[in-house]
Amino acid sequence: MAKAPGVVALLTDFGLRDHYVGVMKGVILSVNPDARIIDISHEVPSQGILEGYFLLSNTYRYFPRGTVFVAVVDPGVGTDRAIVALQTDRYTFLAPDNGLLGFLQKESRIRRSVRVTQSRYFLEPVSNTFHGRDIFAPVAGHLSKGLALAKLGPKAGRLEQISAPVPRVPREGVILGQVVSIDRFGNIVTNIGTGDLSEAGTVEVKVGKHRIERISQSYAEAKKGTLLAIAGSAGTLEISVNKGNASALTGARVGDSIRVRHSTS
Amino acid sequence: MAKAPGVVALLTDFGLRDHYVGVMKGVILSVNPDARIIDISHEVPSQGILEGYFLLSNTYRYFPRGTVFVAVVDPGVGTDRAIVALQTDRYTFLAPDNGLLGFLQKESRIRRSVRVTQSRYFLEPVSNTFHGRDIFAPVAGHLSKGLALAKLGPKAGRLEQISAPVPRVPREGVILGQVVSIDRFGNIVTNIGTGDLSEAGTVEVKVGKHRIERISQSYAEAKKGTLLAIAGSAGTLEISVNKGNASALTGARVGDSIRVRHSTS
Amino acid sequence: MAKAPGVVALLTDFGLRDHYVGVMKGVILSVNPDARIIDISHEVPSQGILEGYFLLSNTYRYFPRGTVFVAVVDPGVGTDRAIVALQTDRYTFLAPDNGLLGFLQKESRIRRSVRVTQSRYFLEPVSNTFHGRDIFAPVAGHLSKGLALAKLGPKAGRLEQISAPVPRVPREGVILGQVVSIDRFGNIVTNIGTGDLSEAGTVEVKVGKHRIERISQSYAEAKKGTLLAIAGSAGTLEISVNKGNASALTGARVGDSIRVRHSTS
Repeated sequence: MAKAPGVVALLTDFGLRDHYVGVMKGVILSVNPDARIIDISHEVPSQGILEGYFLLSNTYRYFPRGTVFVAVVDPGVGTDRAIVALQTDRYTFLAPDNGLLGFLQKESRIRRSVRVTQSRYFLEPVSNTFHGRDIFAPVAGHLSKGLALAKLGPKAGRLEQISAPVPRVPREGVILGQVVSIDRFGNIVTNIGTGDLSEAGTVEVKVGKHRIERISQSYAEAKKGTLLAIAGSAGTLEISVNKGNASALTGARVGDSIRVRHSTS
Repeated sequence: MAKAPGVVALLTDFGLRDHYVGVMKGVILSVNPDARIIDISHEVPSQGILEGYFLLSNTYRYFPRGTVFVAVVDPGVGTDRAIVALQTDRYTFLAPDNGLLGFLQKESRIRRSVRVTQSRYFLEPVSNTFHGRDIFAPVAGHLSKGLALAKLGPKAGRLEQISAPVPRVPREGVILGQVVSIDRFGNIVTNIGTGDLSEAGTVEVKVGKHRIERISQSYAEAKKGTLLAIAGSAGTLEISVNKGNASALTGARVGDSIRVRHSTS
Repeated sequence: MAKAPGVVALLTDFGLRDHYVGVMKGVILSVNPDARIIDISHEVPSQGILEGYFLLSNTYRYFPRGTVFVAVVDPGVGTDRAIVALQTDRYTFLAPDNGLLGFLQKESRIRRSVRVTQSRYFLEPVSNTFHGRDIFAPVAGHLSKGLALAKLGPKAGRLEQISAPVPRVPREGVILGQVVSIDRFGNIVTNIGTGDLSEAGTVEVKVGKHRIERISQSYAEAKKGTLLAIAGSAGTLEISVNKGNASALTGARVGDSIRVRHSTS
């Protein structure tokens, strides 16, 4: 795959109503006028580290080699929480060390990591409430110009982790998972991997008091308006309604239990 | 007008809360690092083919020659609905063949069209729920690099059409139209062309129980807070309130009838 | 700081649901295919000149030299309100002359300004409802290619001003300010500058019936869920809740009074 120098991909919980994102873009371009800024999303729920974690971990692999990801969901701004810059074989990441990038540690993808402490790359003075502007944006600008990680500060230790919910297997043939997000279409996204299920003979999915008796291959396999279970695009089980809204139909919300029973072929 | 190579303009119903749009941008840039991605809108109502149709048909003409438009409002994803790539004298379009691009057929603008079937240009494997990522984005990347349409698949037939509402003329001097959208300001956008009305001597517009006795030349011709009818920027009649919200004032909604009576000079 | 030729930064109240912003981008790129369009925000409240004023005045300084700012919050579209193009030492601005750019006059930053009247740089015909498309976008395209301001029309006079609320000092040691915005996190942004307060011995901030007895240095200085006052990133006093929502807790809204009492050291 081609390398795209200068791509800076932004993920924040700043929303687009306020001036925060506009200011960050201005600072990035001031440091690197050739930066190509791509918005991933600025609508992560306020201070929603876990939501940001899922969003970024489902997205970054699809970007070109050399992309600099800047992720700012930062309830600890102004405290002594660290800011980290990481490199994998293909990418650079910059974020508060609060679990937001924890998936990289889990996937053992980190090749280099530093605590970002060298204030010569920051705006002056650094505020206590808006490090997006004063630290993340200018450092991202420098990274997108090729600044070596080692210039930013000392080697970092293991990343902070957040406890992302994982499915349990109380006994063979049963999986207890959770709803991890409801997307814009009302699709119910779970944390239950579909790899194993694909080989099962029979499958039953329970969401609230609703029961689904099979895994569909497409939305259209189910009648319009009825519930179905399907392998979602992130590799996990999703519950949907053909041309409808599964969350509205079932009342399911993030954190709710999803129970799968399957034959073990 | 100048040609802008590498411009990829996106229109989807994916919203910006989820990872869908971010992933599409990543894939496009991975295929063509020089692509210049422009967001038209990602807030088309979920599965709103008609709304996407109006939005794109009102927008595309204003883009530079060579722009690649990618429109994904795709309730039939995973079924055998076709994906089409088209070229007009100035542009390239990529979309599901579900009526979203039907305006191009009506305007007889299509010079070349193919069904997109050549999986060598897709991501592997192709999911059944997210062709935006697996088909539309990589094919758009290739098109923006200049890939010839013929490489993507066989010649396509006529495009699918959706039944966009059209005004009726029950008798001379009367037009029965519909509200086709309510914009952010509460302006009531109709499907009644203003070309004919401009020559009429007298005009009366009826929306619900409200009556408007003339066509204004600007919002400010009406007193603050009062209803007015005006030639909208898309070439159709709009009903507005000077410094106010016409939809809130009248209760008008998409699909409602609008009646125009005019003298036939 | 580096110069970034071709950067066009957009601020409007058009929202992203309709075709208005997409059309503007298309027109800008048609005039200048090398333009690099940056969205500041399109979610300024409808016709909210004051909100646009605050948003832009807090943002523009952070952009690179040479940026062309296009600000369209334009309740007077179609009237004889003027359109102005201005230059400061570093930037170019284009907006209706309705107070939106008034901060530049106050800061005495204007070096050159013209009324935009030369229709050869407009789209033809110019509508009465969408100057964003027909005037602002094409003129911005030309400005981003380096068109001299003088080509656009005659010298302009003083800019129109809006009455932005300013704090009062009814007696020494007391400041009566206002809430000027509530951000996405529920932070209450006031118009009370924090420069003076920083030297005060004791400070008491009153918002509704809530009383805060000091200025915190960071959110985390307050217990989770409790109110605090802090120097915000725009240089004014803000009222926040550590990991919570100050607007929800206090019920404060834009325009509400904020009272500060401080010792005069």
